[in-house]
Amino acid sequence: MRIALDAMGGDHAPDVVVEGGIQAAREYGLEIVLVGKERVIKKELAKYDTSGLSLPVVPASEVLEMDEEPARAARAKKDSSMAVGLRMVKEGQAEAFASAGNSGGVLATALFTLGRLKGVKRPALSSIIPVKTGFSFILDLGGNTDCKPEWLLQFGIMGSIYAEIVLGIQNPRVAIISNGEEEGKGNQLVKETTPLLKGSHLNFVGNVEGKDIVTGKADVIVTDGFTGNVAVKTAEGVADMLFSLLKDAIEKRPLAILGACLAQGAFKEVKRRLDYSEYGGAPLLGVKGVVIVGHGRSNAKAIKNMVRTAAEAVRGDMLGAIQEAIESNLLLKGVKHA
Amino acid sequence: MRIALDAMGGDHAPDVVVEGGIQAAREYGLEIVLVGKERVIKKELAKYDTSGLSLPVVPASEVLEMDEEPARAARAKKDSSMAVGLRMVKEGQAEAFASAGNSGGVLATALFTLGRLKGVKRPALSSIIPVKTGFSFILDLGGNTDCKPEWLLQFGIMGSIYAEIVLGIQNPRVAIISNGEEEGKGNQLVKETTPLLKGSHLNFVGNVEGKDIVTGKADVIVTDGFTGNVAVKTAEGVADMLFSLLKDAIEKRPLAILGACLAQGAFKEVKRRLDYSEYGGAPLLGVKGVVIVGHGRSNAKAIKNMVRTAAEAVRGDMLGAIQEAIESNLLLKGVKHA
Repeated sequence: MRIALDAMGGDHAPDVVVEGGIQAAREYGLEIVLVGKERVIKKELAKYDTSGLSLPVVPASEVLEMDEEPARAARAKKDSSMAVGLRMVKEGQAEAFASAGNSGGVLATALFTLGRLKGVKRPALSSIIPVKTGFSFILDLGGNTDCKPEWLLQFGIMGSIYAEIVLGIQNPRVAIISNGEEEGKGNQLVKETTPLLKGSHLNFVGNVEGKDIVTGKADVIVTDGFTGNVAVKTAEGVADMLFSLLKDAIEKRPLAILGACLAQGAFKEVKRRLDYSEYGGAPLLGVKGVVIVGHGRSNAKAIKNMVRTAAEAVRGDMLGAIQEAIESNLLLKGVKHA
Repeated sequence: MRIALDAMGGDHAPDVVVEGGIQAAREYGLEIVLVGKERVIKKELAKYDTSGLSLPVVPASEVLEMDEEPARAARAKKDSSMAVGLRMVKEGQAEAFASAGNSGGVLATALFTLGRLKGVKRPALSSIIPVKTGFSFILDLGGNTDCKPEWLLQFGIMGSIYAEIVLGIQNPRVAIISNGEEEGKGNQLVKETTPLLKGSHLNFVGNVEGKDIVTGKADVIVTDGFTGNVAVKTAEGVADMLFSLLKDAIEKRPLAILGACLAQGAFKEVKRRLDYSEYGGAPLLGVKGVVIVGHGRSNAKAIKNMVRTAAEAVRGDMLGAIQEAIESNLLLKGVKHA
């Protein structure tokens, strides 16, 4: 299987991306196409023993930077590593594309290049978040700030399939974020989406409040891109704040420093539980191709896992399953309305 | 000064509320009117030496419970401790009302009993949240799930006055929650509210992302009640999860248990920094009366501080300041539109 990897995407590109790509080629026996500035990539590759691995380089002269306005940059940079990699997917030269670059940029470029799956109203950016009992899958995360009920239903359908095929969760529990657990609580969007989710074939378990996003009450958490973005970033911010407050409080107490050393294993375990690099990345769902987006801060391990995720989505025929589910849902609607 | 205190409100009412009320009467020299079931309150009072303190009991036969549907219960229970206490404010028999009970119930009962200040579109529930550098004030938190831009502007105006008068913050920085820091990022509501905030007399500092809600970039954080509720509850949930993961990780390692004992002071410092009971409560803003709402889990210290907050709002003539600011803003709009 050939996976196109955006060698220029991420805070630590291209070195860390190339390193992760090599690890993926070695561990999973995949062909990893490194897309980006040829000279730079080859210089990085030369640092490693890559004999026996399949790591072709495909040149792309431009880079869509982390801080660029996605839609504008996607339109302007026709030869970015994202555009070139995604065109490979469109043309069947690669079976998936993975990038730890500007996620909005991937979304915009993928929309231009691949387009949407038939019947899909809006593609969704997603994330895997660590929760008390393991992890949950949440979408949308910023692409669609103002949503319609049907889009959220489709996010639920696509998220459920991803959870089943790639994350290996049987009959995933799907919930919608709201400002209260009870049915009837919610803004207009939640109130209008609830009957659609209840009427679908999904294993819909109702509303989750903010505090239950991280307790593992649901496997797939659906929300509009605005709320999802705020919730996930608030969670990151609070975790950062707590660790930083704890660090400051420990550092001014000699005994506490000793104590923290003794408790180091416990701290490491918690950090490991929260470590996004284990999951590697999360899909852009609803476009005509397998596209995985990684965290900007990805290290080599995260890149490797992002590539693995892409391969699993290809192997499980995620696209076919989504297409079928979206179509049968449209059909269901057609029957109901007839 | 007379403050009406909802003796039946909160998870640990009435015992903890009566205890906190006594502390407030003693420390601040206030007259605390305990509103609720007379027999129960008097039984609690009898446990303490209250000589020299002014702690009259005003009977109310009903209780609006924590889990009741607010609007319905507020309509049905005309003799709840909330209704009675708020009527005292309306009739000038008390200068403020404070409750750690069902916050939606306080909101609904206050709307029935006191009504809105002139020109205020919607009252807002608020909260004080611990942030890296101290605390921030956030509103709305659930009353208004679908908002109009002008309501959010008014939340900013009312929040700014509260921050100045009661929290003692000079020229408070006001921000709006969005899915990106840059101007232009946001859902329709944020995009339409931004020019109103920029055109106001407020010290508007722009958008805050989820991760910056807790970094102290703003003193007053404005948002719709749906997003505010999700953000604040997500923050609570993540903090709970981290402490619980850390506890579990420590408990299975004997050395880490010893380490945690040595670092106990540091842990306590962090817990203290996150302790809502220091702030005691936050106002319901926009109604015709000073109303402070406390956390359901309030302990006696939180109740005492909630009463202090109410007294400070009265002393600083918060209501007059809000009324004036709302009117001058309406006037400003009138001039602009002329």
